[in-house]
Amino acid sequence: MTKSNMKRVYFFGDGRAEGKADMKNLLGGKGANLAEMNLIGVPVPPGFTITTDTCTEYTQLGREAVIATLKPEVEAHMREVEKLMGSKFGDMENPLLMSVRSGSRASMPGMMSTILNLGLNDTAVVGLAKKTGNERFAWDSYRRFIQMYGDVVLGVEPEIKGDHDPFEVIIDEMKEEKGIKLDTEFSAEDLKEMVKRFKAAVKKSTGKDFPNDAWEQLWGAVCAVFDSWNNERAILYRRLEGIPDEWGTAVNVQAMVFGNMGDNSATGVCFSRDAATGEDQFIGEYLINAQGEDVVAGIRTPEQITIIGSKRWAELAGVSEEERASKYPSMEEALPEIYKELDKYQTILENHYKDMQDMEFTVQEGKLWMLQTRNGKRTGAAMVKIAMDMYRQGMIDEKTALLRLDPIKLDELLHPVFDKKAVKSAKLIAKGLNASPGAASGRIVFSSEETAEWAARGEKVIMVRLETTPEDLAGMMAGQGILTSRGGMTSHAAVVARGWGKCCVCGAGALQIDYANKTMTVDGVVYKEGDWISLNGSTGEIFEGRIATQAAELDEDFAAIMELADKYARMKVRTNADTPEDARKAIEFGATGIGLCRTEHMFFEGEKIIAMREMILANDTAGRVKALEKLLPFQQEDFEGIFEAMAGLPVTVRLLDPPLHEFVPHDEKGIQDMANAMGVSEKEIKQRVEGLIEQNPMLGHRGCRLGNTYPEITVMQTRAILGAALNLKKKGIETHPEIMVPLTCILYEYLEQEKIIRDTAKQLFEECGDSVEFKVGTMIEIPRATLTADRIASAAEFFSFGTNDLTQMTFGFSRDDIASFLPIYLEKKILKNDPFQQIDQKGVGQLMRMATEKGRAVRPDLKCGICGEHGGDPSSVEFCHSLGLDYVSCSPFRVPIARLAAAQAVLKEA
Amino acid sequence: MTKSNMKRVYFFGDGRAEGKADMKNLLGGKGANLAEMNLIGVPVPPGFTITTDTCTEYTQLGREAVIATLKPEVEAHMREVEKLMGSKFGDMENPLLMSVRSGSRASMPGMMSTILNLGLNDTAVVGLAKKTGNERFAWDSYRRFIQMYGDVVLGVEPEIKGDHDPFEVIIDEMKEEKGIKLDTEFSAEDLKEMVKRFKAAVKKSTGKDFPNDAWEQLWGAVCAVFDSWNNERAILYRRLEGIPDEWGTAVNVQAMVFGNMGDNSATGVCFSRDAATGEDQFIGEYLINAQGEDVVAGIRTPEQITIIGSKRWAELAGVSEEERASKYPSMEEALPEIYKELDKYQTILENHYKDMQDMEFTVQEGKLWMLQTRNGKRTGAAMVKIAMDMYRQGMIDEKTALLRLDPIKLDELLHPVFDKKAVKSAKLIAKGLNASPGAASGRIVFSSEETAEWAARGEKVIMVRLETTPEDLAGMMAGQGILTSRGGMTSHAAVVARGWGKCCVCGAGALQIDYANKTMTVDGVVYKEGDWISLNGSTGEIFEGRIATQAAELDEDFAAIMELADKYARMKVRTNADTPEDARKAIEFGATGIGLCRTEHMFFEGEKIIAMREMILANDTAGRVKALEKLLPFQQEDFEGIFEAMAGLPVTVRLLDPPLHEFVPHDEKGIQDMANAMGVSEKEIKQRVEGLIEQNPMLGHRGCRLGNTYPEITVMQTRAILGAALNLKKKGIETHPEIMVPLTCILYEYLEQEKIIRDTAKQLFEECGDSVEFKVGTMIEIPRATLTADRIASAAEFFSFGTNDLTQMTFGFSRDDIASFLPIYLEKKILKNDPFQQIDQKGVGQLMRMATEKGRAVRPDLKCGICGEHGGDPSSVEFCHSLGLDYVSCSPFRVPIARLAAAQAVLKEA
Repeated sequence: MTKSNMKRVYFFGDGRAEGKADMKNLLGGKGANLAEMNLIGVPVPPGFTITTDTCTEYTQLGREAVIATLKPEVEAHMREVEKLMGSKFGDMENPLLMSVRSGSRASMPGMMSTILNLGLNDTAVVGLAKKTGNERFAWDSYRRFIQMYGDVVLGVEPEIKGDHDPFEVIIDEMKEEKGIKLDTEFSAEDLKEMVKRFKAAVKKSTGKDFPNDAWEQLWGAVCAVFDSWNNERAILYRRLEGIPDEWGTAVNVQAMVFGNMGDNSATGVCFSRDAATGEDQFIGEYLINAQGEDVVAGIRTPEQITIIGSKRWAELAGVSEEERASKYPSMEEALPEIYKELDKYQTILENHYKDMQDMEFTVQEGKLWMLQTRNGKRTGAAMVKIAMDMYRQGMIDEKTALLRLDPIKLDELLHPVFDKKAVKSAKLIAKGLNASPGAASGRIVFSSEETAEWAARGEKVIMVRLETTPEDLAGMMAGQGILTSRGGMTSHAAVVARGWGKCCVCGAGALQIDYANKTMTVDGVVYKEGDWISLNGSTGEIFEGRIATQAAELDEDFAAIMELADKYARMKVRTNADTPEDARKAIEFGATGIGLCRTEHMFFEGEKIIAMREMILANDTAGRVKALEKLLPFQQEDFEGIFEAMAGLPVTVRLLDPPLHEFVPHDEKGIQDMANAMGVSEKEIKQRVEGLIEQNPMLGHRGCRLGNTYPEITVMQTRAILGAALNLKKKGIETHPEIMVPLTCILYEYLEQEKIIRDTAKQLFEECGDSVEFKVGTMIEIPRATLTADRIASAAEFFSFGTNDLTQMTFGFSRDDIASFLPIYLEKKILKNDPFQQIDQKGVGQLMRMATEKGRAVRPDLKCGICGEHGGDPSSVEFCHSLGLDYVSCSPFRVPIARLAAAQAVLKEA
Repeated sequence: MTKSNMKRVYFFGDGRAEGKADMKNLLGGKGANLAEMNLIGVPVPPGFTITTDTCTEYTQLGREAVIATLKPEVEAHMREVEKLMGSKFGDMENPLLMSVRSGSRASMPGMMSTILNLGLNDTAVVGLAKKTGNERFAWDSYRRFIQMYGDVVLGVEPEIKGDHDPFEVIIDEMKEEKGIKLDTEFSAEDLKEMVKRFKAAVKKSTGKDFPNDAWEQLWGAVCAVFDSWNNERAILYRRLEGIPDEWGTAVNVQAMVFGNMGDNSATGVCFSRDAATGEDQFIGEYLINAQGEDVVAGIRTPEQITIIGSKRWAELAGVSEEERASKYPSMEEALPEIYKELDKYQTILENHYKDMQDMEFTVQEGKLWMLQTRNGKRTGAAMVKIAMDMYRQGMIDEKTALLRLDPIKLDELLHPVFDKKAVKSAKLIAKGLNASPGAASGRIVFSSEETAEWAARGEKVIMVRLETTPEDLAGMMAGQGILTSRGGMTSHAAVVARGWGKCCVCGAGALQIDYANKTMTVDGVVYKEGDWISLNGSTGEIFEGRIATQAAELDEDFAAIMELADKYARMKVRTNADTPEDARKAIEFGATGIGLCRTEHMFFEGEKIIAMREMILANDTAGRVKALEKLLPFQQEDFEGIFEAMAGLPVTVRLLDPPLHEFVPHDEKGIQDMANAMGVSEKEIKQRVEGLIEQNPMLGHRGCRLGNTYPEITVMQTRAILGAALNLKKKGIETHPEIMVPLTCILYEYLEQEKIIRDTAKQLFEECGDSVEFKVGTMIEIPRATLTADRIASAAEFFSFGTNDLTQMTFGFSRDDIASFLPIYLEKKILKNDPFQQIDQKGVGQLMRMATEKGRAVRPDLKCGICGEHGGDPSSVEFCHSLGLDYVSCSPFRVPIARLAAAQAVLKEA
């Protein structure tokens, strides 16, 4: 039995509403919002919302019972809508058309979304054609309605499961018959034929005629929304996300309005402030006698809404003021009454939402309707300006200003960008991953050596590689940008480029790179060495030719935002830096220490690599020790430079981590050189190099496994780190070295390393008659380390989460090899995000939480941080805050992003 | 203050003891046991135990206070010992020497173990020389005492930390001076000189003379035991293992006895039953006027203890009965009184411990002392016989009989072994990993093709490879055994060989294999193709030449044990089998289903590999589908064979798992063949093959990532599995297929695959007008799958733990690459066990527990099993039982082991 005294339908329209903003549980998000719009005086097309409780009734009592109960209420409300719209639902001459949308408390995949133009049938379509004077439009609307309703409400399916949608099959057939390619090429007559065939398909699949009766259509759609609440996908989603089945979904039924009903009709979009610059200036575009689609389709050129906007347009287009005023008047000039009304509503809406609004409106026969409003998309610069302006205007407080910002968009402010005009006319040749932001133009070069050579003689170059290795560092540094055809967001090229703030596009699979012939081929077009290309590292776009760029400029608003952020953030932000230059850059951006100083990059310069290779290729401990003695002064000097740059801030130095194979020569010449340098045969060098080859180097002989098999490496590195600190102490420079053992997965691995470090320190301090404070801790980057974090924390003074490796091992994904399936996983929504970009909270995050809790249970003051690539990702920073980490560490250019995200994390928590 | 009324010292000796067996907490394990020996009438050398409570007092009150309190008690007990032994502690002429040992409730690393010969000094050594008539022995005992006492009690250290032990340095120096190589070559005079130098080293390092006074020595040793309770390593161990610091350690002080005091002295070892055959026959060996070392050193040939043993020895040695009786009489004949006593004690001891005893004894001047008894090591056959004999003799019940067995030793019974005599004279050339048990002899061949060819013409061959790949299967199958120089216990060769019960030695790093020249070099000795070698897969030994083998034979005792095991085991034991032959073998061994049927091995035979390669190298879905259609009938036939062999038992089939790269040709000819077969250029094939290369294939495009990127593979395999089941149903054969999705780490990965499987099944059943029951579930082998097991179990009907991969990813260890550090990790005790052989309970086990609990919280009847290599490891089986798994699955030859281990798990729990 339905409850007879329950109100099931809530009307909205004409400045009235039975619901209100806080009735989201009963009316769903959308329904509550529609009510609110009316109450603040914004004219939205009238309609009504059927409550979520009715959905629950529907589930319990079934279709017939619920329709019977709903009918009187719905019919009564429909009559109100008809009155307001001056047309009639189900009428042949002057049909009122409706939209039907679901609207639950939380949006859910699998739920029915929208059916438009409900109420159309074989006769009403004629009425619509007459009213709009556009027969093609009327029939196109009708065929779209049949298709949508057929698919969603009637469940029309292909004869053989898995085949194409029968409606799409008909469209393809007709295109072939007519010899056309685009939907827009169908004539009104074609569309009439299409409607016929669509209806036949419905009959064939469902055994019934397409419903001609508007009320039958409406009840079908309403029930389809309720049914979709209980479809498999939605049920599974609720179970996984813990959403109660009883929440139910509301149904919103709303009048359709049309901007193409003659010259007293129009449609347009507008922004309450300038989305490009952030300037506090209302702007927008509109078209007389047009549908929403026409504005964005670019077939007709829309007019400006404001005089200011119109004048700016004219200036850019080279149109004189006279011509503009006469031929292209703004709405402000052409329809001043409507304009005044629109300006009023945009002000109401911005004040209501306290953010820049992006609005759609339609004028139907002289009456303005606001169809949609949402917070407007904007550039990074506009984002900062709007937030700070609104804060200064007293519209929002400083916390809101901070929360209003998308941290990731700060990136746009830190890197050069393409000149907007220039890029519009550039030819896009392919897209890769947006691995490291910024814009760059240069000539194609295919090797690191040549990149360095070309750059040395003043050429601007882009280094193009299949992928990069540490051997390519010189070229990567010298060029304007880096382009690779393989590798993901955390490939070598991507990580290094982001660290340097250098533009990089990775994994552009469409490129066929031929080192031998020095060519790069895309879709059959061959680009040769020396040809100009341009990269947009922020979007992953690759353009032909040279495009002018504009340098990055940080303004006062940016500085103000950063200051505000630091006021609220609890977590510190450190940086990943391997050189004094990186360190200095990061301090400029506000870093409070180095969270990860990798020592391996240091070994690739000049003589160091020779000594390093000697160490690796040595046959015994004595040989290794001899080579390490050569490396020691170099390494110590490197540390002195970094410690000096950081001037008293903490510096976490990671001991040697990568598989040794990465350091040895693989080409004939390199092997020859090594043989000469070491005085052994080439064959012997070759054998040693081959002996280092591993099936899965990521899971191989690296990290502290090196230090535990070759303790002499740890001894040398400890002497270099602490030796540097002692030297700086003599100069009066404070240091806070933190020595970090990489890849620990077993307590005793750590204990062995710690003992070597402390014993070496003791000996060094005795030798020098002086000492410095230092900490010893470990990376937490292997699942087992997180599982046994209590054991490891009994010895380690700090944890630093290496979420790159932790993600690799928790998922069993090699970041170098995911290109073959990750795009498909993202497309099929098997994964919502690339876990190498955003911490996977369900899996990897669970391990991080476990590690932090277990570690601190044993050592309450355990310092915990993160130094994986995720340290610069806002959602990951927020998650790290929720874990109670002490700091995040990221590449220098991500420091401002992380500072903002750290502040937002605090504000969101409260 | 010490507690004055507390008893701190407990005497034992001469059939009396102040303690008893259940006083382990107070006396430690060793002390309680020494007391017990006396109480059951076994003559052990007298002594006393200082309680664990005294250790706690020591920690609180310090050395002086505790010595003062202990002194009267210790001195009193020492007098009792002196009386019994007829010598005097600290005496110059007739010195009583003592041993000092720690003995806590739980054994602990870092704790002091044993100091022997305490009481020796510059004059007592002369007395000992006189008493034993062996000056060299006396001085050797003395120098060993100084060294042990110096290291452990006095803490003598090298001048420079990390340098060699100063005593060892002296020994090396003296060897050089004397031009000798072995310790045994030192003369009595040398040893006197050595004592001098040792003492000088002690003085230099500690600043004090070596203590000459026996009592000073004793107190030093007692305090060193107490101190060792509080050394760093012991404290850390206790913290990690949750052992309270208050437990403390006891100290056992016991008289030394000597078997080399003339012809009325002797020493020997004996077994209460035959350790080789298990026969219930007392046997042993002894030497008149000798020390324990002499019996095992092999310098003098020991005599037999029993007449039976003596006669058997004579027969083997070809000695006539007359000669034996006169020249080599047994103890039973030569010393009948002593023999009678010894026989009595061995019976007491076996009856007391209810297990076969391995005993050491010494006769000092006519008096028999039992020095040590322990459960004797035995062969697998003896183990089974002894347990079943004792059970039948009523000594032990059936549960005890089961618990008495070491499951892993059953393996010896299932495989051929070397002829014992033959192997004694064989030359050991190297050792590798004991990858798959059994003995094999054959001629060396270096490739799979040639192995197959040689075998086809009747040669016995051993295939020798750097490592094996699926392409080598034909050769692996054809040869007698497999030898590789790389790879660990779970490398391809090891896993496949164990599955087949074929002898395999892996990772023999000492071999240098040269494919080009067809040679294998070890320590400079070159073995060529065709040379004979022999492998012992149970020990990892590699011998030169051909060694005769004996076939395995399973007797009634074995069958009885298995029957008993099944009576108690809760977990079922399934097998990993990919062919009908494997399946039948496993059923013989008692398997109750297939827990893992890998489909990939099926693709390597004959035409299948061509079609498989076509599928992989196809450019698009259509090409793949075409090739898959060719594979379908082959695959269906394979499944029919397996299902038929399993006759109604459940069969879990894993969908395609390995990276596709493993299937494609890598040699010129193979590529040519493929190009011809597919009608495309070689260049194209080469490019496709190269495109499949991955940096870390283990973490790459494999498992359900294949099925999700190429759903058509899953469709084909589902049709083959269920098609086979439908065909057998027609023949009246029952099947229980369980389709297993590999490498799931994200719920939606599984859901996508499950949908394909269920949709395909539906369609197939409709086509056939018939259906079969089947289950769909997943491997749990990625850390993230365990962390999100609740989500995955919401859809999956069963879990099967793939602990090989789970171990790889939890540790970040590639099983193919661990050879470079795992041996060092085991040696340094960073790891106690190879985690690929025994489940790492702290890490991997934690994840398994989490997954089982989370999974069953959502789906209480979730079937959980394990199908990694660990399924055949006893400690891992026990762990799986503790998790509540439903079954373990292992290779056929491990099935009996797992059945026994599963039963023991139940018994140990109770």
